[in-house]
Amino acid sequence: MWSPEKEDGGPPAPARSLTPRHRILTALLYCTGDMEHFGKIMEVPDRPFPLQLVDWLLRGVARVILANNPLSGALILAALVMASPWQALLGTVGLTASTLTAVIIGQDSAEVAGGLHGFNGMLVSLLMGVFSSAGDWYWWLLLPALLGGATCTFLFSGLAPLLDKWDLPVAVFPFNMVIVLFLSATGPHNAYFPHYPATPPGATEDLNHTMLDVPQLLQGVVLGVGQIYACGALPSTLLILGAVLIFSPIMCVHALLGSGIGTLVGLSLSVRHAALYSGLAGFNGALGCMAVGGLFFTFSWRTHLFAIASAFLSAYADIALSNLLGTVGLPACSWGATLVATLMLLLTARNLSAYRIPIGRVGSPEHNLHKHRRWEEGAKEDSTDV
Amino acid sequence: MWSPEKEDGGPPAPARSLTPRHRILTALLYCTGDMEHFGKIMEVPDRPFPLQLVDWLLRGVARVILANNPLSGALILAALVMASPWQALLGTVGLTASTLTAVIIGQDSAEVAGGLHGFNGMLVSLLMGVFSSAGDWYWWLLLPALLGGATCTFLFSGLAPLLDKWDLPVAVFPFNMVIVLFLSATGPHNAYFPHYPATPPGATEDLNHTMLDVPQLLQGVVLGVGQIYACGALPSTLLILGAVLIFSPIMCVHALLGSGIGTLVGLSLSVRHAALYSGLAGFNGALGCMAVGGLFFTFSWRTHLFAIASAFLSAYADIALSNLLGTVGLPACSWGATLVATLMLLLTARNLSAYRIPIGRVGSPEHNLHKHRRWEEGAKEDSTDV
Amino acid sequence: MWSPEKEDGGPPAPARSLTPRHRILTALLYCTGDMEHFGKIMEVPDRPFPLQLVDWLLRGVARVILANNPLSGALILAALVMASPWQALLGTVGLTASTLTAVIIGQDSAEVAGGLHGFNGMLVSLLMGVFSSAGDWYWWLLLPALLGGATCTFLFSGLAPLLDKWDLPVAVFPFNMVIVLFLSATGPHNAYFPHYPATPPGATEDLNHTMLDVPQLLQGVVLGVGQIYACGALPSTLLILGAVLIFSPIMCVHALLGSGIGTLVGLSLSVRHAALYSGLAGFNGALGCMAVGGLFFTFSWRTHLFAIASAFLSAYADIALSNLLGTVGLPACSWGATLVATLMLLLTARNLSAYRIPIGRVGSPEHNLHKHRRWEEGAKEDSTDV
Repeated sequence: MWSPEKEDGGPPAPARSLTPRHRILTALLYCTGDMEHFGKIMEVPDRPFPLQLVDWLLRGVARVILANNPLSGALILAALVMASPWQALLGTVGLTASTLTAVIIGQDSAEVAGGLHGFNGMLVSLLMGVFSSAGDWYWWLLLPALLGGATCTFLFSGLAPLLDKWDLPVAVFPFNMVIVLFLSATGPHNAYFPHYPATPPGATEDLNHTMLDVPQLLQGVVLGVGQIYACGALPSTLLILGAVLIFSPIMCVHALLGSGIGTLVGLSLSVRHAALYSGLAGFNGALGCMAVGGLFFTFSWRTHLFAIASAFLSAYADIALSNLLGTVGLPACSWGATLVATLMLLLTARNLSAYRIPIGRVGSPEHNLHKHRRWEEGAKEDSTDV
Repeated sequence: MWSPEKEDGGPPAPARSLTPRHRILTALLYCTGDMEHFGKIMEVPDRPFPLQLVDWLLRGVARVILANNPLSGALILAALVMASPWQALLGTVGLTASTLTAVIIGQDSAEVAGGLHGFNGMLVSLLMGVFSSAGDWYWWLLLPALLGGATCTFLFSGLAPLLDKWDLPVAVFPFNMVIVLFLSATGPHNAYFPHYPATPPGATEDLNHTMLDVPQLLQGVVLGVGQIYACGALPSTLLILGAVLIFSPIMCVHALLGSGIGTLVGLSLSVRHAALYSGLAGFNGALGCMAVGGLFFTFSWRTHLFAIASAFLSAYADIALSNLLGTVGLPACSWGATLVATLMLLLTARNLSAYRIPIGRVGSPEHNLHKHRRWEEGAKEDSTDV
Repeated sequence: MWSPEKEDGGPPAPARSLTPRHRILTALLYCTGDMEHFGKIMEVPDRPFPLQLVDWLLRGVARVILANNPLSGALILAALVMASPWQALLGTVGLTASTLTAVIIGQDSAEVAGGLHGFNGMLVSLLMGVFSSAGDWYWWLLLPALLGGATCTFLFSGLAPLLDKWDLPVAVFPFNMVIVLFLSATGPHNAYFPHYPATPPGATEDLNHTMLDVPQLLQGVVLGVGQIYACGALPSTLLILGAVLIFSPIMCVHALLGSGIGTLVGLSLSVRHAALYSGLAGFNGALGCMAVGGLFFTFSWRTHLFAIASAFLSAYADIALSNLLGTVGLPACSWGATLVATLMLLLTARNLSAYRIPIGRVGSPEHNLHKHRRWEEGAKEDSTDV
């Protein structure tokens, strides 16, 4: 029968009295899923603050791709360093700034420990680096990275009560808002912080005269997952995929599936080939697919179909918003996936809403599935008893 | 005295045991108002699904113009076929796609039966046809019409819980969002789905040097009602007006009044004469006027004045939004009327909110008025009793 | 000990039986703070309506700068007349139109008496005058000023229930919406209501080749407070500052501080020098700083730090939105400060939310502080008792 006190799936009370050797063992055993246990070990009161902070930051890194696992975070950070040390530095600055801001202004400590106040700041500073036309190692850029990261925490804290009324996650709304505001505030010809204007996917200067290169297209599907971190290098992307695999194989499959759907959508509207090959056409689809396929809904064939629909809608919305914002030189970032995933969470349609997991209980898809099964078995046994 | 069991205005229980002849008679008797009774007859369990679907679809057609009557829907569909068979086909495809999507994803069946999941899809596909520069009978356009219709249902289902917190209807928000996204996604020079850019009403290329042609202006007022269905032909518009008259004479008067106000507003800001003559300046006024004048508020001289104010605001908002969206080549569709009608529903001002009808009880204006009177009489009798 | 019946800080019951001489005395004594008492005297039933209206209107004038004091309103009105009689006339027309509309459509009379339905209309008509390119004393402009004022009341009444769910004030959202819609509707080349397009602060035509003029910069900081009323004259600005000082010295300091921060922010992004010298770069910072520093939060060193953060965010948001809206020739008005102040009110961060004052109890900062202290003393005494 289903025993509620075992709900968090970890071993019972002795956790706090483990020897160092045991701790390493436990960490190895539990390095998949959301490593809730590791988080708990790190929260032991006598643990030094810097060590705790590292756990929070690494979770923040992984949260960008909807994972909640410090090991995934470490792998992804390694992937970013491999692709560009400067970008990795920028990202870390934004990440740290937003996490520390959350500590300073007094946000809920459980949220901070879960890395919820880091990922938006990281994304903002990564994108600042990508769009900056001042080149790598332009140290002044650390200033807006710091400020942008801090602003994300303010936005997160302010949007939470708004979205909470419908049990919606804040997700990457703060990142999307801050980066659009930053790029608007500086403009392409700013004296201190110049940046490249965004190229909309429907830009006509690229005449699409050349034939489609299928291997490049397939590579673009894989790169779509890396583009979630604004990273366009293949080895790094593979490492990021590995990091997602550790957290959840179901999400890894959905990431690739969503990116593939995004690429298909790009083809259906004949976007620039460059957008297809670089993975830019795919990453919104990947995010939209991952959010619905297992994370916020219990995995089943029905939610799988909805995940595919979500990927399609995310990718179409992304192209529309990219063209729209492109008229004023702005990128659409992950607005498409964020809005569509929020829409999916709001859906009242019985065939999807029945699988909705309350935000407070969201874990890895496998964990969600496991809990759901135990709950169903419990319900069955209960009904047999009666 | 007011008897609550008679509230739905239909005859009592024997409805389910009527002979076919009686059914036809009843249908003729009840073909005005929202034909709630006909809907109930169609829902008899042994009724074949296609027949039920036709009722839902026809109600969906009428819902575009705020009517809820299958006969009105049939007349309007005939008007659209008369004006352009291709447009009528496109509209039907979108209508069917969104209604069937609602059935498949498991929306509330009462909503589906009321045609609530059809009208947005129909409007999207109609507008896709109007803006397409690929000419009539461009069969590929059926694909976005299908997809757009389905997307409307997702948006409807997701917006409902958001707006429900303030007892607001979803109205045509999904249509307005989807069409703007579709036109943004494809852009004017898309390889597969090219379209005309929208011409803002304040465009200066039209120099307004010529004198105003009063008969054309008056015709424009009438055409404003047809423009709700993106239809600019006079005979079809007259048929549509007839369809509204069947549902409710009060709404028919408000439609013409609102269109007239919209034309006046257009004159006050010296918009292009073409916008006045085609009825494009009037249709937002018509929608704004109809929504407040009897549908969502009990009809009285006060709500009538508010309906006039709503028409003015809708028409001004439409011109503002048309100019704004026109800078990126997009049309404002019915954003103006939709936003203003939503604002009116939110108004806390005593002189309007006292007449507000809860969304769940909205019927035809005459029906609303009738119920209100019975309720007042009941209240009076009750107080006499005491 | 804290006695709740003294909560409003005014003398007790005999207020209604004061002789005329006493009344004048009382008015002089209570002319600082929110002059709640004066408002009560004005509401005596036998007071003629025009006299009451003057109190409401003058409070409306002061509300623009977050003050609630008829004397401040009178001083500010005098400052506006001094700067430009035409602008002052326009402002009064909009103010009166929106207040009377509120009376006519039946808004809550306490809100009307507090001047809550006047300030948006005043701002709209002031900005209409500033942007109009038809010159002063273009009498036709009174028509949109009237209509715009009335529309503000509709928007205020409709937004209130939306924002009320999170205990947020409507603030100047209606003004910001109406002025953007008005400028969009007319467009720069309108035949009846032409206007200047807005110049974004990042405009590159101004080459910033000249050295910064520090005295002008400092003057710009002061002018930033006047720009809240779209007034760029130094003497008038000083009078406006005096009016704020009467209401609350804390707010006066925060206004200048915020304007200074806004100017710093402008320097950090190298905006046009003209924007710095005219105070346009500072007024959003001033508003953002005033709202957080004492008005909606009990004043303390923590809220003071948040007020500084709010000023920074408001000023950055203003530059971003100005550049963004500038691409379509529109100004950002006070969108930046309004959005950031709303964000601050939503913040769940413990270190700020603990100081939040419920909207219904907001008074002058000094009054808030006084009440908070009495409450704390009361709590201490209570705990001593136990």
